[in-house]
Amino acid sequence: MAPGSPLSDLIRALPPGSVVTHADTLATYRQDRALDPDAGTPLALVRPTSTDEVQETVRWCAAHGVKLVTRGAGTSLSGGSTAVDGALMLSTERMRALHIDLPTRTATVQPGLMNSEVKVAAAQHGLWYPPDPSSFEICSIGGNVATNAGGLCCVKYGVTGDYVLGLQVVLADGRAVRLGGRQIKDSAGLSLTKLFVGSEGVLGVITEITLRLLPAQPPASTVVGTFPSVSHASRAVLAVTDRIRPALLEFMDKVTLNAVEDHLRMGLPREAEALLLAQSDAPGAAGRAEVELIQEAFTAHGAAECFSTDDPVEGEAFAAARRAAIPAVEKLGSLLLEDVGVPLPALPDLIDGVAAIAAAEDVTIAVIAHAGDGNTHPLIAFDPTDAAQRERAHRAFGQIMDLAISLGGTITGEHGVGRLKKAWLPDQVGSDVMQMTAAIKNALDPDGLLNPGVML
Amino acid sequence: MAPGSPLSDLIRALPPGSVVTHADTLATYRQDRALDPDAGTPLALVRPTSTDEVQETVRWCAAHGVKLVTRGAGTSLSGGSTAVDGALMLSTERMRALHIDLPTRTATVQPGLMNSEVKVAAAQHGLWYPPDPSSFEICSIGGNVATNAGGLCCVKYGVTGDYVLGLQVVLADGRAVRLGGRQIKDSAGLSLTKLFVGSEGVLGVITEITLRLLPAQPPASTVVGTFPSVSHASRAVLAVTDRIRPALLEFMDKVTLNAVEDHLRMGLPREAEALLLAQSDAPGAAGRAEVELIQEAFTAHGAAECFSTDDPVEGEAFAAARRAAIPAVEKLGSLLLEDVGVPLPALPDLIDGVAAIAAAEDVTIAVIAHAGDGNTHPLIAFDPTDAAQRERAHRAFGQIMDLAISLGGTITGEHGVGRLKKAWLPDQVGSDVMQMTAAIKNALDPDGLLNPGVML
Repeated sequence: MAPGSPLSDLIRALPPGSVVTHADTLATYRQDRALDPDAGTPLALVRPTSTDEVQETVRWCAAHGVKLVTRGAGTSLSGGSTAVDGALMLSTERMRALHIDLPTRTATVQPGLMNSEVKVAAAQHGLWYPPDPSSFEICSIGGNVATNAGGLCCVKYGVTGDYVLGLQVVLADGRAVRLGGRQIKDSAGLSLTKLFVGSEGVLGVITEITLRLLPAQPPASTVVGTFPSVSHASRAVLAVTDRIRPALLEFMDKVTLNAVEDHLRMGLPREAEALLLAQSDAPGAAGRAEVELIQEAFTAHGAAECFSTDDPVEGEAFAAARRAAIPAVEKLGSLLLEDVGVPLPALPDLIDGVAAIAAAEDVTIAVIAHAGDGNTHPLIAFDPTDAAQRERAHRAFGQIMDLAISLGGTITGEHGVGRLKKAWLPDQVGSDVMQMTAAIKNALDPDGLLNPGVML
Repeated sequence: MAPGSPLSDLIRALPPGSVVTHADTLATYRQDRALDPDAGTPLALVRPTSTDEVQETVRWCAAHGVKLVTRGAGTSLSGGSTAVDGALMLSTERMRALHIDLPTRTATVQPGLMNSEVKVAAAQHGLWYPPDPSSFEICSIGGNVATNAGGLCCVKYGVTGDYVLGLQVVLADGRAVRLGGRQIKDSAGLSLTKLFVGSEGVLGVITEITLRLLPAQPPASTVVGTFPSVSHASRAVLAVTDRIRPALLEFMDKVTLNAVEDHLRMGLPREAEALLLAQSDAPGAAGRAEVELIQEAFTAHGAAECFSTDDPVEGEAFAAARRAAIPAVEKLGSLLLEDVGVPLPALPDLIDGVAAIAAAEDVTIAVIAHAGDGNTHPLIAFDPTDAAQRERAHRAFGQIMDLAISLGGTITGEHGVGRLKKAWLPDQVGSDVMQMTAAIKNALDPDGLLNPGVML
């Protein structure tokens, strides 16, 4: 780096080692888990440790008109943290402070901690941070907030945004603001805290998060059922959700089951067309009643086998199998990852429709779903060396989002729009909402410095 | 109205009877429950029945540069719907459509329905809309959304915004947009649905709301304790919330108890310095354990009497007494209504501090609180004909907000900022957040047509 170059100012302003320009390192920060082949190369990588250092970085970007991409752990499945040519890459990986405040039952954390680290720290005090993306061991809490991430327990316990009480955010001009706080209720002014949840880095850089914690989750009982068709299973889901809110209600199809079994060798039923995994954490008799109701619903909708256990370790093994689905299916080929959601009654139509698209386009689509909240992940696996297959896979990718929109649903329930899904966002929300989005973006980031190419 | 006047265009554009200009009627729409003596007089009252009619009205305002105040049931306690001289008053009172969608467990409603009407409609299908402002029988659901209203059960079940899945909103230029929908999870685009919750009519006119419903609440057990001081009671609150999340945890001081007893004659303990009212709706043994824990916490913190009942009718009588507090205390004089909230551990400091302010300023302050979530309503009662007392009351009003801010809290937990509290908003959120608020307001309502004077 030439001493007189603008970047040398930033290098001087930050502690030694904060700014990285080695090509080899930069190459590892080009893509996230969406593996976008069109990813750019960052101008440099910045790894701040504090809000102050983020402010320095953003001020430098503003002064030099350099764009900024913020990256948590790089596990975005929709290209939310893909590098942009010539833009700075800000990684939150060194922002790892954590403070549990027992009296307010809150965790105040920097964004670079893993979701699992927040969970573990809370658990050490008998508390619980519920949101549990399948990637919870490798995804950052900052990324969770930026995408309003969900997970398995969200069907009963809500998504990330339901737990965010306060934020510290660095704006596009380098000012740092605090939004919300540790109080449970707050109607003072616009709901800016909630606006920044799910804003995917386009409105500011989140540098501190105050999260509401719950008492430890009661031990859960688990029910597993196997079904003769995906339609049977999706109808069994509605038979459960029409009557209770389970603590978890997950779906896996045959392709997924076999991919996971290849990966984990735990004895999953390879011949089943679909599997449902449900949990109840209601205490005592209420929990037993829920387990019975789930079993009845499964059996009434054709479950061949229906297994239940009160052993949390056994239940967790099934949940872990479900969480292993994406890495397992990734072995079948390159993946296009969907995250479409629909109002619950449309779940069977969505799942049947995905099967029809797979047949029509002759592509492999493994389907997993947070079935209890209508959020599905059709995983389109294709051979990247087969151009025709790749084209069919991309066509199916769009068709599935079109299908979800036509069913009154969303193109993304929990991953965010990122760069991969932004072409479909106007179809879902309409041009007026896109204009509102652009107006708010422009109000807070008039020079378009932050995470360019995402969402808009 | 002269035939050639601009208003005649609006009268022609809307169904007969939609626009009212009689001075007597307009006079009844000047104030809301905050009884602002500086309320203006509307140019006219418009009572649309549909989104289309709201669009006509807003387009007329935009074309003629006439400002617009939106009013639900007029129960704002912070002057959120106070009339402005020369502005149009849009009342949602005729927007009363309701549709319960059983498969998605949602209610889609127009804003003019009372909160209680939504509750009743949900209950007819075995479902429950939890948020329960004390004014639930006389406050509109649109106003609830506009203020992110809370209530008694929010300590366990969350506030209005936690139940809003979708909105239809008319923007300042007359366009109508749909935000969110009936799906539980949605990460597509900015969280605009959440931004409009609590926006107090300054960003758009909410014309339709889609609310998430829960299964019917299980029957609750009730515990009532009386305490020798407000400090004892507020410490008992923490002893409960440190261990469980009750379904309700309310506080009343001696002034309130006596005002309510004067009003209802139900045999409340007039001699107690404070009363706590708690409920558990956990099923079976878990509920019994919660009731025992609450009783222990109350007794350990000096409760003289501790009464419990499993009879929901008896429990509801106490909740009704708590909800009657504001009308009861209103009989003691004119009221300045506070809505300050703090992180829970600061609750005793807030309650002790309010008592100190009452003593120092020699004014009567009755205190009620949604104690379980740290949200308190000190009610400053004064004789409006006594200028010196009025001045002391207003000074106390500001001091209590200053106190809440100094304790890391909020000037409003659930009523909104309105016109009465906006002078304190910058002290709470800071000038940078005020600038962000103004930037977003300006992005969506550049001519400042909507609810001028509120929040900003």
